[in-house]
Amino acid sequence: MLLSFYCYNAGAFIWKPTMISKNQLKLIRALNQKKYRKQHQLFLVQGEKNVVELLGSDFEVDQIFATHSFIAEHSDALRNQHVIETDEEQLEKASTLISNNAALAIVKMKQKAVPEPKGMMLALDGVSDPGNLGTIIRVADWYGITHIIASDDCADPYNPKTISATMGSFSRVHVSQVDLPSYLNNAALPIYGAYLGGENVHQVSFAKEGIILMGSESHGIRPLAGQHVTQKITIPAFGQAESLNVAMATGIILDNVRRGQ
Amino acid sequence: MLLSFYCYNAGAFIWKPTMISKNQLKLIRALNQKKYRKQHQLFLVQGEKNVVELLGSDFEVDQIFATHSFIAEHSDALRNQHVIETDEEQLEKASTLISNNAALAIVKMKQKAVPEPKGMMLALDGVSDPGNLGTIIRVADWYGITHIIASDDCADPYNPKTISATMGSFSRVHVSQVDLPSYLNNAALPIYGAYLGGENVHQVSFAKEGIILMGSESHGIRPLAGQHVTQKITIPAFGQAESLNVAMATGIILDNVRRGQ
Repeated sequence: MLLSFYCYNAGAFIWKPTMISKNQLKLIRALNQKKYRKQHQLFLVQGEKNVVELLGSDFEVDQIFATHSFIAEHSDALRNQHVIETDEEQLEKASTLISNNAALAIVKMKQKAVPEPKGMMLALDGVSDPGNLGTIIRVADWYGITHIIASDDCADPYNPKTISATMGSFSRVHVSQVDLPSYLNNAALPIYGAYLGGENVHQVSFAKEGIILMGSESHGIRPLAGQHVTQKITIPAFGQAESLNVAMATGIILDNVRRGQ
Repeated sequence: MLLSFYCYNAGAFIWKPTMISKNQLKLIRALNQKKYRKQHQLFLVQGEKNVVELLGSDFEVDQIFATHSFIAEHSDALRNQHVIETDEEQLEKASTLISNNAALAIVKMKQKAVPEPKGMMLALDGVSDPGNLGTIIRVADWYGITHIIASDDCADPYNPKTISATMGSFSRVHVSQVDLPSYLNNAALPIYGAYLGGENVHQVSFAKEGIILMGSESHGIRPLAGQHVTQKITIPAFGQAESLNVAMATGIILDNVRRGQ
């Protein structure tokens, strides 16, 4: 449903897009906080690329605020959606991203059962930076991982910064937050843990099924999760950098896993 | 030289660290802009990790603003440096990083000749995001690349966001900004260009010497640089993400290059 109206301004009737109401703005602002996302079971998707991917997914959209040009360009995908046309200024004001001149959607969370340990999986221990988590979701999607197991204290997968960094991959990769040590304890799969000083990933023969376990940049894999690791693996260094960003390390390890499969 | 003084405040003499002066603050602010960095031939290094790596490098430091605890912890490395003790509040105010509770240094740029095309090199075409450039510098350092050739319109390697993202690797990896198409034209080395639809990097036999050429996320490798590519290479996708972040792609390609060497 596209809404617009005419308003009286300086002696003339001027066409004016429907603005984002105060209540809507309040909801958008609230959804920047985890507790309100949880309470409303809603989250934000912002920016052209992410909203386009959203519209092609099976997520249920509550409402979309979009500019005239975004609506014109994506009219097919927007059919049967609750669309509020707005201008760039309003959108920028509502967005938590520095630059958003296209669209912002309020989306319903999906409940998904925690998957059984099966196939090649990715698990994260204490990865608390939302941007890193988003980049990990994106590279997991590249390498065909559709479900990530994350410790309870990882960044919230619905954090706007996470969603933004996924560049649309949030719509294909689900993240389940669990009690990670218990999950790993119950998994009858090889668990490959990324450490400094493990076996060179260029030499590891990865099994067909297994769990790749990544720790945070600051704490690595913590002992409670690490005790379940069956093989320590390491990206070989050829220079002098002390470490790699966790998202980068995840991508490089997944590339090594997939090359043998 | 450590300075501190006592000042009279509310009827008592209180020890007070030397504050960052107005002129110093003005200089720091100016160095957030490329034109002033160029004019002064100075740049900023911020945060504990980066300043510590700086102190272990051959960069010449103009002055360092640091907290009492940073100074106490790194007194050896700070010998013969011009250190101004400050408090966290002042440091946060001066810093361009959201969080900096350790140190900020003003550093002299080094002039380095553009290297001859030799060995395994990395070249960047139009990588304009400072954070991406910094992450690329960090992963290049991991894989033992000490010199990056960047097109004139890449992000400034001295941008505070770039320096910050290198996590200290700026002190070991030099970036030369050049007329990239001419540089590539004069290089008698294989040039491996990252494209969608090139040869699978898992199958490529990289030569001992060569140039890995990466384009930007939005434009890829542009034709002027691309015409010099001798082999197109691609990271194989196993899922549905449309692309990888350019820093991520650089890291994965360098891992594939080094595994054969």
